[in-house]
Amino acid sequence: MKAIAVLTSGGDSPGMNAAVRAVVRVGIASGLEVSCVHGGYSGLLAGDIRQMTHKDVSNLIQAGGSVIGCTRCQEMFEDYAPGAAANILKRRGIDGLVVIGGEGSYRGAIKISQHGIPVVGIPGTIDNDIPGTERTIGFDTACDTLVDCLGKLRDTAASHNRTFVVEAMGRNGGWLALYGGIAGGADVILIPEVPWTNEEVLTRLTARAASGKTFHLVVISEGAGRCTDLAGWLQAQTPDELEVRATIPGHIQRGGSPSTADRLFASRCGQRAVEALVGGRGGVMIGELDGKIAEVPLEKAIEGRRVIDKQLFELALALA
Amino acid sequence: MKAIAVLTSGGDSPGMNAAVRAVVRVGIASGLEVSCVHGGYSGLLAGDIRQMTHKDVSNLIQAGGSVIGCTRCQEMFEDYAPGAAANILKRRGIDGLVVIGGEGSYRGAIKISQHGIPVVGIPGTIDNDIPGTERTIGFDTACDTLVDCLGKLRDTAASHNRTFVVEAMGRNGGWLALYGGIAGGADVILIPEVPWTNEEVLTRLTARAASGKTFHLVVISEGAGRCTDLAGWLQAQTPDELEVRATIPGHIQRGGSPSTADRLFASRCGQRAVEALVGGRGGVMIGELDGKIAEVPLEKAIEGRRVIDKQLFELALALA
Amino acid sequence: MKAIAVLTSGGDSPGMNAAVRAVVRVGIASGLEVSCVHGGYSGLLAGDIRQMTHKDVSNLIQAGGSVIGCTRCQEMFEDYAPGAAANILKRRGIDGLVVIGGEGSYRGAIKISQHGIPVVGIPGTIDNDIPGTERTIGFDTACDTLVDCLGKLRDTAASHNRTFVVEAMGRNGGWLALYGGIAGGADVILIPEVPWTNEEVLTRLTARAASGKTFHLVVISEGAGRCTDLAGWLQAQTPDELEVRATIPGHIQRGGSPSTADRLFASRCGQRAVEALVGGRGGVMIGELDGKIAEVPLEKAIEGRRVIDKQLFELALALA
Amino acid sequence: MKAIAVLTSGGDSPGMNAAVRAVVRVGIASGLEVSCVHGGYSGLLAGDIRQMTHKDVSNLIQAGGSVIGCTRCQEMFEDYAPGAAANILKRRGIDGLVVIGGEGSYRGAIKISQHGIPVVGIPGTIDNDIPGTERTIGFDTACDTLVDCLGKLRDTAASHNRTFVVEAMGRNGGWLALYGGIAGGADVILIPEVPWTNEEVLTRLTARAASGKTFHLVVISEGAGRCTDLAGWLQAQTPDELEVRATIPGHIQRGGSPSTADRLFASRCGQRAVEALVGGRGGVMIGELDGKIAEVPLEKAIEGRRVIDKQLFELALALA
Repeated sequence: MKAIAVLTSGGDSPGMNAAVRAVVRVGIASGLEVSCVHGGYSGLLAGDIRQMTHKDVSNLIQAGGSVIGCTRCQEMFEDYAPGAAANILKRRGIDGLVVIGGEGSYRGAIKISQHGIPVVGIPGTIDNDIPGTERTIGFDTACDTLVDCLGKLRDTAASHNRTFVVEAMGRNGGWLALYGGIAGGADVILIPEVPWTNEEVLTRLTARAASGKTFHLVVISEGAGRCTDLAGWLQAQTPDELEVRATIPGHIQRGGSPSTADRLFASRCGQRAVEALVGGRGGVMIGELDGKIAEVPLEKAIEGRRVIDKQLFELALALA
Repeated sequence: MKAIAVLTSGGDSPGMNAAVRAVVRVGIASGLEVSCVHGGYSGLLAGDIRQMTHKDVSNLIQAGGSVIGCTRCQEMFEDYAPGAAANILKRRGIDGLVVIGGEGSYRGAIKISQHGIPVVGIPGTIDNDIPGTERTIGFDTACDTLVDCLGKLRDTAASHNRTFVVEAMGRNGGWLALYGGIAGGADVILIPEVPWTNEEVLTRLTARAASGKTFHLVVISEGAGRCTDLAGWLQAQTPDELEVRATIPGHIQRGGSPSTADRLFASRCGQRAVEALVGGRGGVMIGELDGKIAEVPLEKAIEGRRVIDKQLFELALALA
Repeated sequence: MKAIAVLTSGGDSPGMNAAVRAVVRVGIASGLEVSCVHGGYSGLLAGDIRQMTHKDVSNLIQAGGSVIGCTRCQEMFEDYAPGAAANILKRRGIDGLVVIGGEGSYRGAIKISQHGIPVVGIPGTIDNDIPGTERTIGFDTACDTLVDCLGKLRDTAASHNRTFVVEAMGRNGGWLALYGGIAGGADVILIPEVPWTNEEVLTRLTARAASGKTFHLVVISEGAGRCTDLAGWLQAQTPDELEVRATIPGHIQRGGSPSTADRLFASRCGQRAVEALVGGRGGVMIGELDGKIAEVPLEKAIEGRRVIDKQLFELALALA
Repeated sequence: MKAIAVLTSGGDSPGMNAAVRAVVRVGIASGLEVSCVHGGYSGLLAGDIRQMTHKDVSNLIQAGGSVIGCTRCQEMFEDYAPGAAANILKRRGIDGLVVIGGEGSYRGAIKISQHGIPVVGIPGTIDNDIPGTERTIGFDTACDTLVDCLGKLRDTAASHNRTFVVEAMGRNGGWLALYGGIAGGADVILIPEVPWTNEEVLTRLTARAASGKTFHLVVISEGAGRCTDLAGWLQAQTPDELEVRATIPGHIQRGGSPSTADRLFASRCGQRAVEALVGGRGGVMIGELDGKIAEVPLEKAIEGRRVIDKQLFELALALA
């Protein structure tokens, strides 16, 4: 292994830059040439690959998003694309690739590796739902952002005796809603993994009101239903008792300077990704297992989605 | 003047608690008994009035929202209500009232004062549009919150070459959109005070793209049009060139711990409100004029809405 | 088990309140009466014990410090004290105790349990150095605070081509300095676990300067040496080349609203502590092992201090 | 006027970059060539002047410190230096200069203007003490930072019944201590403008303790005395009653992303500075007077220091 490249792909997440920085610096410290691909797989297919120095990644660990871009790339699903991508890397003398992203990104990565370029994945997504790892880069920061939003809404809810229904990101899983909801002190948390009905929500809110609670925070995961629908239904049922508002923080949850934990996890992943490539262990994703950095076959990382811990959901019920 | 009361009314805003605290402490220091009305005008009509000690308002200056509640109150518009409110105050031995809120709150205040209770207003609203004052409590904090949201969206926009259309609160005026937009580095700012068309926005974005800008932030004031409509139209016009997303931070903009500037302005207003009542100068709103704390006739504060500085809009254009 | 009490003890840390809240709410949900001891062991010996309702711990999850107080208590080291404490609890009908704190707090807890009151510990300290757990409540938040400080100093360092020597809390271990230093992008990290000399620091800074770096951030753990001494020495050696400043954030690192991760870990610990007491498993500390909540004998938690991961120190060197 | 340059000088302050950005963009929009001088007056004397495009200042409004550097420059006090600086500018075809900084920077600016280069000043300092303007760039952000520190210390103080003595920046004036202290809810504020003694502080703290307050926050301005001395003295007097700690946030107060208010004020100053130069009105500082952007003779801005509003100090006493 003489030269490697790193790219970010799929939805951006806070901490991706910290991972890129670690790949570059640990790579250089390991005697490798390290390049960044700009613009994800699209940039790779277009040959937008730039060699980096130690200094090129200065002041990057704190930056949100991905400074090397992470455009989604339809072209990568074409049959010829993975081979073309591998050839471009070979022509540049690059013999290893680090892909920071999620499931879709890994599918492309696996195909590229079948054309003779060892690839290592790093889990970068705020969704926290990649199988084979207990943590993904950006999830912790997204939780902090959602919790901050809930804290602000709590001020207004308490002042006006209101009910807020807040939509958390997560089309396929309730991770962000559950973690952010518990930490933000939400009274009701709705996630796709646990069935629920409008009526049950209403029952819980009226029980809370009966016990003297004057305001309520409901967090609903994107994948569990429509925030505005639920808010509208609740309001229609209780025109006099509750004053219901819907709030959708949306993409705000994706941005921001990464938390300490995300910066550290990203840095460790970057370090281990270089070690894996140098050690001839392509085809793995770096993740956290049993609280420790580990290598997992990339194939495992695309087998469905990691589901939330039901015990944590029970905790949410006990605390609300 | 022996005893006064303070209430918050209308939409809550960060810094209201700091104003309450200042009224209580400066009032007590001036030899007055000071009470808080809980629940705005509704609470007043219900007689929910509690005498406060110096210590009761400890650890309050940093709290968002209004801990004494600021429910909107339809009943206050009934003919009998202002007289009833005045009588309740008199029966409690309260001979002065401080009302923290906006235009609607002042209308009630003026009527109460006509029944023999001198009333002083303090401008509490994130809208910054009360005539007779250059500043309202909470506006500065709301700007900081919107700017923080824009900063987070910028991360994602830059990573994905996206266009974000972000809705700022402000049904009647563009203050928050304009201040937050400039400070957040928005590329296009749309406010109700300045006519605009979808086509103009598109023209500006395509000009930016032509000059090499890869992402764009558009801030639209609630009163200037619908965020989702504009985002949808832009996306429909440019399915291939732009990737457009709508984001509505909503009530998040109302909450949060108040900024230094809001805490100080609120504290000064509270101090001056007590001085005005003690000095026999009821019927005024405390505000900022020419950068200084001033007293303004309450009638002036309900004459329409203060409009934004057009020069600032020009600055926004020059900086974008 | 019919009634339990919870106290916080030793240095406060962000998230202690979230743990108290979880003990109270999960306890009540489990059919127990739950009381809070106010003022740590001093309060216990003075009998300052108050029964709590579900509502009494509302709006607490986000609060920094410990609202029930965590005074250090010399009296607890007297021979008679643990027995007296146990008797006070028994007289109140309390048959289980949760102690949130660190090593010193556990020593008292073990002695109390020898007088017939089962005790469960929860690791609350920003130092992260309790054996038997991979995480302590407050450490993550303290890291975020240190990282925030480093980010602010970076602005000034870069503007003025300065060198900052920043002291991180941690008298006995380098956890905070190491995690915060890596995440804050520190250029040199000095911890008590790894020998270092002034000369080595100077060598590294001059090497950095020679490679074109114009400013430097040095993080030194409290236990590794005196921040002001090192800064003074560096300045004396390089009066013309470097402009060195010392900064000691101090107790600022202890405060603040807890991070999502600390709130969740605290909540889980509180839940598990109740389960342990109810299940008749006193004499344990709740902690995290292999990334999962676990129970560890309290005796293990007072055997020296958990030392940092040397690999992480290597990572710091590679990234700097 | 065809070409202008802008430099930052003296201590950095948050918002300087926003002012630079505004000078560049408004200058270009006005048909000027605009250059940045890198490294303050040192850079000017060394000829480190680079022409800027609109895009060169993208993503700059939110950055703390000064990205173009603001080294202090002894050489500028030499007799030949101002003339040399003016000649360098003339040779580059630059016929106007904007200097962002404080008093020392303006002294240099006035001398340069005497050699035929019109100069306009912009007040950039966290000290807020420049005569002729009611506000300086960075002060508002520094206040927010100090208030944030006080909030964190309050958590620990309340948990441990402690007294914190916190040092605010400000060698010559108490602005930051006073504003930050009031907004942070400090119980005692010590500033150089108001005489005080150790004994008086002790009297006030013991009176507070007697009234049931269990913790205390004292803010002392750098120019009013030594934080550690006062803390030590208080502790020595009250070894049993008070537990006193000193905290010196130091340069942390200089950094950080600028607040909305600082970004806006900086942007407005930049705009007006360009207008003044284009309008042939050199020799002025842009400032805020009576709440509005104004031009003030540069000579006025170096006449001593602006002193704090004594009424505000009275307010601090009433609120504590």
